[in-house]
Amino acid sequence: MPRYFLRVMYDGSGYVGWQRQKNGLSVQEVMEEVFSLQVGTVVRLTAAGRTDSGVHALGMVVHADLPESVASPKDFLHKLNSHLPKGIALTGIRQVKHRAHARFDAYERRYQYRICIRKNPFEWGRAWMLFTRPDVELMQTAAAGFLGRHDFSAFCSTRSTEQDRFCDVKEVSVKTAGDIITLHIRADRFLMNMVRTMAGTLVEIGLGKRPADDIPIILESCDRRRAGVKAPAEGLYFMEALYPQNIFEDDRWLSLADA
Amino acid sequence: MPRYFLRVMYDGSGYVGWQRQKNGLSVQEVMEEVFSLQVGTVVRLTAAGRTDSGVHALGMVVHADLPESVASPKDFLHKLNSHLPKGIALTGIRQVKHRAHARFDAYERRYQYRICIRKNPFEWGRAWMLFTRPDVELMQTAAAGFLGRHDFSAFCSTRSTEQDRFCDVKEVSVKTAGDIITLHIRADRFLMNMVRTMAGTLVEIGLGKRPADDIPIILESCDRRRAGVKAPAEGLYFMEALYPQNIFEDDRWLSLADA
Repeated sequence: MPRYFLRVMYDGSGYVGWQRQKNGLSVQEVMEEVFSLQVGTVVRLTAAGRTDSGVHALGMVVHADLPESVASPKDFLHKLNSHLPKGIALTGIRQVKHRAHARFDAYERRYQYRICIRKNPFEWGRAWMLFTRPDVELMQTAAAGFLGRHDFSAFCSTRSTEQDRFCDVKEVSVKTAGDIITLHIRADRFLMNMVRTMAGTLVEIGLGKRPADDIPIILESCDRRRAGVKAPAEGLYFMEALYPQNIFEDDRWLSLADA
Repeated sequence: MPRYFLRVMYDGSGYVGWQRQKNGLSVQEVMEEVFSLQVGTVVRLTAAGRTDSGVHALGMVVHADLPESVASPKDFLHKLNSHLPKGIALTGIRQVKHRAHARFDAYERRYQYRICIRKNPFEWGRAWMLFTRPDVELMQTAAAGFLGRHDFSAFCSTRSTEQDRFCDVKEVSVKTAGDIITLHIRADRFLMNMVRTMAGTLVEIGLGKRPADDIPIILESCDRRRAGVKAPAEGLYFMEALYPQNIFEDDRWLSLADA
């Protein structure tokens, strides 16, 4: 069966996260059930990253093997979207080589973390409702301490069983627009709760609770207790995953905009 | 008692609109109850415009007489916001002259109407989920037909008891960003359901269901049946009301950003 990459947007509120869990409804379970029913055979989906309960995605990438009998990718997007619940939308599709893998082939992942600095009725569940304004320049200065390849154990959940804790962080930038501060974070890979712990620590620096040069010291400690709070799930968005060109069959993504 | 103008942002979902109604909870009722309880005397609020059930506001203006005993406006904003429900926020305050009136003194009102052209999990309840792309250039061309002073009876609810149906429309522009088309509409005044009927008619033109030069013909007819559908409430936002400088006591708005 041909393999496809699919881009998925979801509102994480009300889901236990991407991955199937015994304790509640996951995005994966809902999508696999809708896919299987519509395609007429069991479909399994593999995602570029696992998002925690309540975390959102604007451009999650998943792979799926779909039978030849599937109609055109354009019709497929529209059909699946009409059957998926309100909180989940397919936004793009692209055929890939048979061995392409949404998780293992991604060489970079991008997240955003949104912080709301004033009461705003439209931001509940979509940002960390901090209700106060941290010093963005301090945060940006401190963020430079994350850049490069480091052991991120201090920013990783103690529940993680991951052996390799090295990540290569390529960007941490801090931007303000209206009531919202947005962190843009790019790395080759992320550990469990890593972005949320980075965001929580940067906010503590921005609020003057820690010195701006704290990040390298925390990283070196490899001690989770040295880092700051884990920022709430509702501020986190999985934005996109990047792949080498040679895994694709199609020249480009077919998006909802074309479809 | 000194009179103040207050700027209010609200998510209209779950409210029957601005104005008190027998059939459900209005923004006015909720706000008057919270104000009265916090100020310790009955407070009445008068708004620049009435919004329908489900319609949102980013910058509604209301006036209120508040006792001298009220603490500083800055503290007042924070205190009231902590008691108002999640969906309602005060975003600014400015003392005005005793006779200033949020409704009668406004010389211009601004609305936006948002249309979502693709499935997007984050836009439910916040835009008209049209799921198709109307021709924006056709809409912009047609929109010019609204400009100037006209009898807007054809775009007014037949339930309206308003005698004077003349409105001076100063701007109708159509902008696209990502999945959203936004109409920006400015006029001296608006009639019941006017923006929603203008939006519904422009979308019908954008979808090729009506000719682009239809607007002047509909206006001239003064017949509501000639105009298009009333677009859904959830796409409509009251953005701001403008006032002459001489009604203000304070030099400028104290906003949540300063407070």
